[in-house]
Amino acid sequence: MTSIAFIGLGHMGAPMAANLVKSGVMVKVFDLVPEAMKSLTDVGALAAKSACGAASGADVVITMLPAGKHVRALYLGEGSSDKGLLDVLAAGTLLIDCSTIDAQSAKHVAEVAASKGFEFVDAPVSGGTAGAAAGTLTFICGGSDSGFEQASKVLSHMGANILHAGGPGAGQVAKICNNMLLSVLMIATSESLQMGIDHGLDPKVLSEIMKVSSGGNWTLDKYNPCPDVMESVPSSNGYQGGFMVDLMVKDLGLSQEAALLTNSCTPMGALARSLYVNHARQGNGTRDFSSIFEQFSNIQ
Amino acid sequence: MTSIAFIGLGHMGAPMAANLVKSGVMVKVFDLVPEAMKSLTDVGALAAKSACGAASGADVVITMLPAGKHVRALYLGEGSSDKGLLDVLAAGTLLIDCSTIDAQSAKHVAEVAASKGFEFVDAPVSGGTAGAAAGTLTFICGGSDSGFEQASKVLSHMGANILHAGGPGAGQVAKICNNMLLSVLMIATSESLQMGIDHGLDPKVLSEIMKVSSGGNWTLDKYNPCPDVMESVPSSNGYQGGFMVDLMVKDLGLSQEAALLTNSCTPMGALARSLYVNHARQGNGTRDFSSIFEQFSNIQ
Amino acid sequence: MTSIAFIGLGHMGAPMAANLVKSGVMVKVFDLVPEAMKSLTDVGALAAKSACGAASGADVVITMLPAGKHVRALYLGEGSSDKGLLDVLAAGTLLIDCSTIDAQSAKHVAEVAASKGFEFVDAPVSGGTAGAAAGTLTFICGGSDSGFEQASKVLSHMGANILHAGGPGAGQVAKICNNMLLSVLMIATSESLQMGIDHGLDPKVLSEIMKVSSGGNWTLDKYNPCPDVMESVPSSNGYQGGFMVDLMVKDLGLSQEAALLTNSCTPMGALARSLYVNHARQGNGTRDFSSIFEQFSNIQ
Amino acid sequence: MTSIAFIGLGHMGAPMAANLVKSGVMVKVFDLVPEAMKSLTDVGALAAKSACGAASGADVVITMLPAGKHVRALYLGEGSSDKGLLDVLAAGTLLIDCSTIDAQSAKHVAEVAASKGFEFVDAPVSGGTAGAAAGTLTFICGGSDSGFEQASKVLSHMGANILHAGGPGAGQVAKICNNMLLSVLMIATSESLQMGIDHGLDPKVLSEIMKVSSGGNWTLDKYNPCPDVMESVPSSNGYQGGFMVDLMVKDLGLSQEAALLTNSCTPMGALARSLYVNHARQGNGTRDFSSIFEQFSNIQ
Repeated sequence: MTSIAFIGLGHMGAPMAANLVKSGVMVKVFDLVPEAMKSLTDVGALAAKSACGAASGADVVITMLPAGKHVRALYLGEGSSDKGLLDVLAAGTLLIDCSTIDAQSAKHVAEVAASKGFEFVDAPVSGGTAGAAAGTLTFICGGSDSGFEQASKVLSHMGANILHAGGPGAGQVAKICNNMLLSVLMIATSESLQMGIDHGLDPKVLSEIMKVSSGGNWTLDKYNPCPDVMESVPSSNGYQGGFMVDLMVKDLGLSQEAALLTNSCTPMGALARSLYVNHARQGNGTRDFSSIFEQFSNIQ
Repeated sequence: MTSIAFIGLGHMGAPMAANLVKSGVMVKVFDLVPEAMKSLTDVGALAAKSACGAASGADVVITMLPAGKHVRALYLGEGSSDKGLLDVLAAGTLLIDCSTIDAQSAKHVAEVAASKGFEFVDAPVSGGTAGAAAGTLTFICGGSDSGFEQASKVLSHMGANILHAGGPGAGQVAKICNNMLLSVLMIATSESLQMGIDHGLDPKVLSEIMKVSSGGNWTLDKYNPCPDVMESVPSSNGYQGGFMVDLMVKDLGLSQEAALLTNSCTPMGALARSLYVNHARQGNGTRDFSSIFEQFSNIQ
Repeated sequence: MTSIAFIGLGHMGAPMAANLVKSGVMVKVFDLVPEAMKSLTDVGALAAKSACGAASGADVVITMLPAGKHVRALYLGEGSSDKGLLDVLAAGTLLIDCSTIDAQSAKHVAEVAASKGFEFVDAPVSGGTAGAAAGTLTFICGGSDSGFEQASKVLSHMGANILHAGGPGAGQVAKICNNMLLSVLMIATSESLQMGIDHGLDPKVLSEIMKVSSGGNWTLDKYNPCPDVMESVPSSNGYQGGFMVDLMVKDLGLSQEAALLTNSCTPMGALARSLYVNHARQGNGTRDFSSIFEQFSNIQ
Repeated sequence: MTSIAFIGLGHMGAPMAANLVKSGVMVKVFDLVPEAMKSLTDVGALAAKSACGAASGADVVITMLPAGKHVRALYLGEGSSDKGLLDVLAAGTLLIDCSTIDAQSAKHVAEVAASKGFEFVDAPVSGGTAGAAAGTLTFICGGSDSGFEQASKVLSHMGANILHAGGPGAGQVAKICNNMLLSVLMIATSESLQMGIDHGLDPKVLSEIMKVSSGGNWTLDKYNPCPDVMESVPSSNGYQGGFMVDLMVKDLGLSQEAALLTNSCTPMGALARSLYVNHARQGNGTRDFSSIFEQFSNIQ
């Protein structure tokens, strides 16, 4: 039986780890926040006293951390008083980082890991907290074919789609390409719906029309930003829950960082970042990202 | 048996009228261009010597014209030496305008038509020349319920989806909302794909990933702008055919005109218009609108 | 001695007319708002009972109205139950329209005026209410050389700069080109200053540096948007007074209308319109247009 | 008599060093390119065999390098097989870095320098190659008051304006704030002029009008982007010379990097970067940055 270490039990990590526990494998968890730990031990996970303690002896290590510097600190020991996991773990341990971080950090950790005999897979997720709880996340993976194959088996307990984007770091690149695109879909759908409303159209009817026409996109299918068009989405619930504006701002920052590296031209993505940063700065950081709709609808 | 007048046999009108002929109804056509007329009489349509000649005695009049001023000239006689159709035709004739024009003109003609006892339906199309030829167009209609019901029967010979957006003019509004959104989808998908390519990803793999993720949209499903990702789309055929840049520029102009009328805020749509106008001014006006991809990919 | 009719006594028109009165000419005024009339008769203007009554017998007619439709209604009688001034006044009366309106209307009225023997000069103003009160406005004129020459003498009592942009309508075009540019200067200066502040720079020091460098522009010289950098500007007075956001939105609407007519590509101007419409929709319509600075500075 | 080391003799560095030589001080130079060295020894500079050789014994070291990594390599030895200058030079040597680099690198080198007893001043320049040749550059400095005071004396031989933006790194921040603003001024002025031209206005007349109105900005005063409006500017010389598009792309990259660090919202700057990257990718990288005008004027 496989034993898995899960490090990082935030809004996403906690429900993901809980699904792993439910799948029947032994899960040892660690987080700096005691309450986060308790929520997992309550459902059957074992508690470790440190990240290293969780990882030692595990067959698979899964990490879900906020940013590239945390991932480099944990695996490489960069800027940390502790040794990195790569200096401590037994070679052969499968390493899966589900954090959304910059591709450069992911590539760098993967290279060091490979040089020490580890498979390292970057596997950022898509699908939000609802998908994490339901076990229907999408994982977008970067790494070798064999690494991806091994990781898929583990990730299948937490997600519905496990995709292979390419070599080390490719998971991160594909994730931010996707989320940059998503941010534009959300804004453009919002402004189109509101323009229709301004001209007297019913947003439900207009949504149905665009959904089956060439304007069709994920936000119309699953996540309509206009209140009361769809049930059970954040826009019909005061923009609570879902995927926070602050997280979209983070992903758009990563996308623009990536664009600078390769001198890529992303006018829509750059504008989306400006609009989301502005939205966050107006106090909407913890609301769902579909609340950008209000930037177009609010009339004083 | 219904007799139908079809006026305006351009790139879209001609194949649409041909499908009507194939459906078995009697179709009388008119266009100022003799070659356009011939292509229809070759397949069985009757030729008229004038728009009025085509329309006289028809049960249904369908028009497919370039702009609002042509529609107003034909139906109302505005700025024309001829009488308008509304002053000539028998009340009760069903009038269907499939042109993509400004909503104000559509509403105005519909009002005058109603005052004289006609049903007038604005029914702009979506789907391009390929859809026109295949009879798989989407019609987005504005008008009364009864007008829509009657028009649906006729339009079903030329399209696969007949949608009712609302009252008079609503078809035009919904169409430009949709096409504004589409233009943004196309650009944002292009820049996201190219950013992935710039970072070493395979555009086919990245397209597959985004298609099933939250970046999913019509352009990834049906019309990938990156050459050689999909077969049988303009991007894999030198950006020939499909929906011309100049037509997208026209629709984006209509969308911005509409935004000005209602003081709507459409930052993405406005940027899309700028990028498409720029693209057209660089000599790409007659290429397919997915050729905007080259604005992001070309490296000298 | 010249007698002048002044029609339209709003925030701009009233102080302009008052300066004319002070210059010693006889001024007959009209406005629909009695209080506006009283403010002028208090300083020595004569009151007329109608626009036509003010204009009859005047050597010069000056109009300051909200939009093109009002100008067309007054001069041409379009959509009005009254005859147009052009059908009533003695040929030879000099007509000066200081309104900011669409160039098409200005050109059209000028053409009709010319056909009836009038010189018509479009002379929109720049400089805000402060400039109107101080008599330091800039007039940007369109019309014939002789029309401009005559108009200049009159306008010199109300402004410091009388500029000739070209033939009929050119004043309006130049005005909206200028104001489109101004809106971008204001936003770009705001975001640059705030980025400096975000990095710890003193906005006064940064303003001084950019003012003498290649970032130098009118807003840094005369109208710094960052509070407490300059004295006696709206930003140091809670963004009261000055040039209202709603008026900038109006001018940006005219600029985008003009861009659509000629298929011009104005990405910065289009983005500026979106940002100002958004700002207005958030309840800032009556504040000074430099308050857009808060869109970049506000942190919750 | 002061002896100065000048390291980095590119398009900007070479004429700057030449002006130092002309001022009468002893200048020892180093560059990796022999031709660059020769152009300076021809006018009286002494040649060194290495950067370190130039700097040893100098009272002042001036560097003009392409990017932050080169500055860190030279001063700190980062990623280099040589020791850093800070480990070699006598404490007390005044260090002036005129490169345009990221503010973080500038701050970091300044901190290490301070810890070892050096004054380090970041002094990026503005004014282009023409300003470098004429000795009329603007230096925007970051550093202590005493460091700035000492540096000013040296820089005055190469520039007309020596400005103090704040502490370490502030010169770099102010420079990229300014250049981000400049890029927007250039684009917005271009699109406004072209819109005027599209409506029949004379760009010379329109330029004169906007120059004295609220659209006034540096590009209208010194660097009109429309051909044949001003003499002796790149736009009247096929966009040769001046400040290259590729350098503007570099500065806009630095500005967006800075915006990401502080979560600043810079919609105009972000759009300007997209438009300039696009312009560069179309083969205009080595032309003057005012050639962006052609993006708005070209009609096929």
